[in-house]
Amino acid sequence: MNRQQLVNLIRERQSFLCVGLDTDLNKIPDHLKGEPDAAFLFNKAIIDATIDHCVAYKPNLAFYESMGIEGLAQLKKTTDYLHSLPKPAFLIADAKRGDIGNTSQQYAKAFLSPDGDFNFDALTIAPYMGEDSVTPFLTYEGKWAVLLALTSNKGAFDFQFMQDQVSGQRLFERVLNASLQWGNPDNLMYVVGATKADMLTSIRAIVPDSFLLVPGVGAQGGSLEEVCRYGLTQECGLLVNSSRGIIYASRERDFAERAAQEAQKLQAQMAVELKKNWM
Amino acid sequence: MNRQQLVNLIRERQSFLCVGLDTDLNKIPDHLKGEPDAAFLFNKAIIDATIDHCVAYKPNLAFYESMGIEGLAQLKKTTDYLHSLPKPAFLIADAKRGDIGNTSQQYAKAFLSPDGDFNFDALTIAPYMGEDSVTPFLTYEGKWAVLLALTSNKGAFDFQFMQDQVSGQRLFERVLNASLQWGNPDNLMYVVGATKADMLTSIRAIVPDSFLLVPGVGAQGGSLEEVCRYGLTQECGLLVNSSRGIIYASRERDFAERAAQEAQKLQAQMAVELKKNWM
Repeated sequence: MNRQQLVNLIRERQSFLCVGLDTDLNKIPDHLKGEPDAAFLFNKAIIDATIDHCVAYKPNLAFYESMGIEGLAQLKKTTDYLHSLPKPAFLIADAKRGDIGNTSQQYAKAFLSPDGDFNFDALTIAPYMGEDSVTPFLTYEGKWAVLLALTSNKGAFDFQFMQDQVSGQRLFERVLNASLQWGNPDNLMYVVGATKADMLTSIRAIVPDSFLLVPGVGAQGGSLEEVCRYGLTQECGLLVNSSRGIIYASRERDFAERAAQEAQKLQAQMAVELKKNWM
Repeated sequence: MNRQQLVNLIRERQSFLCVGLDTDLNKIPDHLKGEPDAAFLFNKAIIDATIDHCVAYKPNLAFYESMGIEGLAQLKKTTDYLHSLPKPAFLIADAKRGDIGNTSQQYAKAFLSPDGDFNFDALTIAPYMGEDSVTPFLTYEGKWAVLLALTSNKGAFDFQFMQDQVSGQRLFERVLNASLQWGNPDNLMYVVGATKADMLTSIRAIVPDSFLLVPGVGAQGGSLEEVCRYGLTQECGLLVNSSRGIIYASRERDFAERAAQEAQKLQAQMAVELKKNWM
C-alpha cells in the first residue's frame, strides 16, 4: 500500500488506528485456549470486530515466534485472512530486524515480498547497524521500512538521548537525519513512542511529512491528544497503535465486542482530531 | 552451555571457530537444489564435515525466514540434528532481536527455552532499545545474550562511533559499559567485527573477560591474527565466525570436503594462537 492509498484509507475510515496483534495464548479467552488455530481464531475475531475502526494491523513477531514454527503458521493464516478481505488494511510486521546488507535483503524478502508467505506492507527496523542494514528494505514498490527512532520503553533513555559531541544532536535525531539520505516519506516511517510526545516537535522539525508509527497509547500511558497536537500533519502522518488496550479489553466470551468498543472509542477521538487539524 | 563448558570445548578442539550457517538456496550445490529438505541436507553435510574443527554454529535467521515457514522447519531440523549428536557445539541464533521488556521475553522463549522448537545456547541482540530490551535474555540458566557492540559492516560508522558529549565515550563503548550493569561474563557476549580489530584494545579495556563473537574474518576482509593479538584472553574469550568462506568454499559436489578443509585451516591457525597466548 503506497502513501496515497494509506492517506485515502485514513480519510475514508476517519481513523489512523493501528491494532497491535500481540497475541499471547496465555491471555486469550479460556474458551479459545484448547482450540487448534487458537491464535488465528482470536486474531480473526479481533479483525472482524475492528476493521471498520482502524486502518492498520501490527502483529509483533515475538508473540508468534514464541509459539515456535506453529506460531508462524498462525501468523500466515492471519495475513492470508487479511489479504482475502474486501476491506483493505495496512499490514505492519513488528519485527525490529536489521543486519548487514546482504542479510537485510533476506529479511526484506521474508516479510515484504509479494511472493513470500506474509506479504506485509511494512516492517519495523532497528537502526544500530546503519545505512546498509536499512536500505535493502526500501527496494519493494509500495512497501515501507519503519525505523526505530524514539521507542516507548524505559530503556529508550539508555542510548537514544545520547548527545553527539560534534553535532549536538541526540542519537534519535542522528538516526532521523541520516535516514533522510536513505529513503523518503514514501518508503520510510519512524517509530516514536507516545510516552515521548514532548519530543514530537523536535522530530517533526526533521521529518515534517513522514508517517510516524506511535505505540504506547493506553497500557503504556501515552496520551492520544498530545500525540496529535504535535504529530498530525496535513496528510495525517500518524499511525497510532494500541495493542493490549484493545485485544485484551475483555478476556471473556465478549472479547471481540469489547475490542470493537475500544477501537471505536479511539476512532471517534481520532475523527475529532482529524477534523480539527486536517479535514 | 555455560562458560566453563564452552572454555573446555575450546581447549579440547583447539578451536574457537564458529561456522555461520547462512544457507541460501541460490548458493548451494546444484545437485541439492531440487531436493526436499535441501537446506537441512546442506547444513547436515556442512556440520558433519566441520564439527571436529569448530566449537559453534551460527545460523543467521534471515536466511531461513526468507524461505518462509518452511525455512524455519529446515532450521529446526538443523538444530534437532545438532542436539542429537554426541559431539557438543555451542548454538547461536543470529537473529539480532530486541524489543520492549515483555516482548523481548517472548523472543527469549522462542530461541533460548529448552522447551522451545530450537533450544539455542545464545541469541544476538540489538541494543538500541536499552536495558529492558536486553535483560529478558539473561534469565535462562547457561544461556547467553550476544549484544551488538561494533558490527563488521560499513553502516557501523553511521552511529556506533558517535561520541557522547558528556562522557566522551563512543556509542559502542556506552553499550558495553551500560551492559556491565545488566549481565556478566557468564551470560553476556558481544559482537565485534573483525574488520574493526584495531578497536579491540578499547573494547577489552571495558570487558576484559567477556567472550566476543567476531564475524568478518574471510569474505568481509578481517584478519584472524589481528583479532587474536588484541582479543584473546586467558580463557580464550573469542568465537571467530566464518560463513561464506567455509560453507561456499565450493559450490560443487565436493562442497562438504572443501568446507572441512577451510574449517581445518582456520582451526590450525587458531591452535597456534591458543598455544601462543593461552595454553
